[in-house]
Amino acid sequence: MSNRNNGQWRLKSRPVGMVKETDFEYIEEPLADLSANQFLVRNLYFAFEPAMRGWLNDVKSYVPPVAIGEVMRASTVGQVVESNNPDFQPGDYVQGMLGWQEYAVTDGTPGVMGAVNKVPEGIPPYLVLSALGGTGLTAYFGLLDVGQPEPGDVVVVSGAAGATGSVAGQIAKIKGASKVVGIAGGPEKCAWLTNDLGFDAAIDYKSEDVKARLEAECPKGINVFFDNVGGDILDAALLNMAMNGRVVLCGGISSYNEEDLPPGPKNYMQLVIRRCRMEGFIVIDYMDRAGEAIADLSAWIASGQIKHGEDIQEGIENTPKTFLRLFEGKNKGKQLLKIADPPL
Amino acid sequence: MSNRNNGQWRLKSRPVGMVKETDFEYIEEPLADLSANQFLVRNLYFAFEPAMRGWLNDVKSYVPPVAIGEVMRASTVGQVVESNNPDFQPGDYVQGMLGWQEYAVTDGTPGVMGAVNKVPEGIPPYLVLSALGGTGLTAYFGLLDVGQPEPGDVVVVSGAAGATGSVAGQIAKIKGASKVVGIAGGPEKCAWLTNDLGFDAAIDYKSEDVKARLEAECPKGINVFFDNVGGDILDAALLNMAMNGRVVLCGGISSYNEEDLPPGPKNYMQLVIRRCRMEGFIVIDYMDRAGEAIADLSAWIASGQIKHGEDIQEGIENTPKTFLRLFEGKNKGKQLLKIADPPL
Repeated sequence: MSNRNNGQWRLKSRPVGMVKETDFEYIEEPLADLSANQFLVRNLYFAFEPAMRGWLNDVKSYVPPVAIGEVMRASTVGQVVESNNPDFQPGDYVQGMLGWQEYAVTDGTPGVMGAVNKVPEGIPPYLVLSALGGTGLTAYFGLLDVGQPEPGDVVVVSGAAGATGSVAGQIAKIKGASKVVGIAGGPEKCAWLTNDLGFDAAIDYKSEDVKARLEAECPKGINVFFDNVGGDILDAALLNMAMNGRVVLCGGISSYNEEDLPPGPKNYMQLVIRRCRMEGFIVIDYMDRAGEAIADLSAWIASGQIKHGEDIQEGIENTPKTFLRLFEGKNKGKQLLKIADPPL
Repeated sequence: MSNRNNGQWRLKSRPVGMVKETDFEYIEEPLADLSANQFLVRNLYFAFEPAMRGWLNDVKSYVPPVAIGEVMRASTVGQVVESNNPDFQPGDYVQGMLGWQEYAVTDGTPGVMGAVNKVPEGIPPYLVLSALGGTGLTAYFGLLDVGQPEPGDVVVVSGAAGATGSVAGQIAKIKGASKVVGIAGGPEKCAWLTNDLGFDAAIDYKSEDVKARLEAECPKGINVFFDNVGGDILDAALLNMAMNGRVVLCGGISSYNEEDLPPGPKNYMQLVIRRCRMEGFIVIDYMDRAGEAIADLSAWIASGQIKHGEDIQEGIENTPKTFLRLFEGKNKGKQLLKIADPPL
């Protein structure tokens, strides 16, 4: 193994405003030998999430920032190629926070964001990066535990063609929502929501008046608004909440690349007038209940009730470019990058 | 009675921006005779709340706006002077939404905001306008039901020298908060909070850096933030919430007189990072549980655990001027106006 080089994308500089490809640099270095209990993973797929943008800022948050010169933190799936660890055998598919690199040396114990886990058999390994991974769990616990939809509720999802939003909307339908409306950018994404994923309506925020469309689609108001976007879209939804509605704050991608924080939701006092609750959550708090979510999600995927979408780019040289697709609104479903085929 | 004139303050024009005395006009008109079941009330005190500013805007809200030319809606206490209603006898003290006028003719049944009720014996009648009325109930249900403080929690109240905030902070202490911090304007109000009401600390937003003081006073973060103010103070609190904290949205007086809505809380994404909930409420939803609140509040007032404060101005000619005191930050405790002594 000592002959192998490991290509890595490291954080070169903290982005100011919109993250750029040049905020990262590609470095190759020889792989170290394995110590006792360690194993070597060949990464196959990188997963990309909007929240990763936050990890690049030097601020106190729910995880420490990525350091300058550090391999960029990212969830990956890979295959074990060598092992000094009796729990991991060559050929095993694994998922972990193994970063933007071709290879990772690990002993499998929890790092900043969880341990390395084996991928269940019988599914495409990359599913644990999307609908059966953090993304699916985020949609599951955010919608059900924070949003607490009741049968008959009207549910609206922003960033609905994204990895989390697309799953959240489908779970809402499964749980008996009378209507699920997705907000997404562009006719292709909107058509995907209504034609393929079973959303009842889609609003194209790039060409339509979101506030007017929400009023038309939800004449009795929104019971649950699952927000991935923030900004004007959150403000429009706040103006159309039903009494005792819930705003699930999953993310706010519209502001992640802003140098200074943009104004907050000016209509937040609607929370008083309509007795609503706006609540944030982070999926890592629910990891002790991951089993129940994965059981439900697996069954819904197997029955076709949840369709998962992945936008799979290729080639490790395209890593930062693929990350930027999130903020350019290009991905439909989970943004992944395939960097290798299974080696074994 | 037909010889009596009734002085009334009516809404003359919808305020644009800061409400002005000239948005109201004083009119005298003869009192009509009583019909069957009606009774005549001589108002003694008017109560003033920041929320009344919202009733002047021609927008859909939790109550209809006051119409141009209508007597200004307000909670009052008065004494029955004549009666065709067997449930109300001359001499009875009553509380109702009887408006800015010397006399009111009513049959006691619910109007826009509740029925006319007799004032319990043995207390100063104006207490049902402050700590034993809507104000006390707002503090009670907002803090306890929405805020759900646990013993040992750190509770911060903005607008703490106001009618609701001053009671909310004292209830927090009674319920076992480890620390209660009030935010108010000026050294006199701050001294009142800590010297008279038992707050552990007070922050003078007019002369101090609220964000820095909150960090210093609440090094482990804020568990419950009871907000009457909004704006920069809400933003400062959001930056210092504890994990799983609760923001109780009671009001947002900082924006009530703005012509255009000011920017919302730019730090709202802290609700995600710290898994917090921000929730609005309106006390009228809790009226079926008023009894439990009044029982607790009465006992706490009797035992001296809750000190109520009233800022009592005098003279019906000063009605709009007294209303403006709320927005000028002049009142310490409940803003009242005494317009007459008991007639009987």
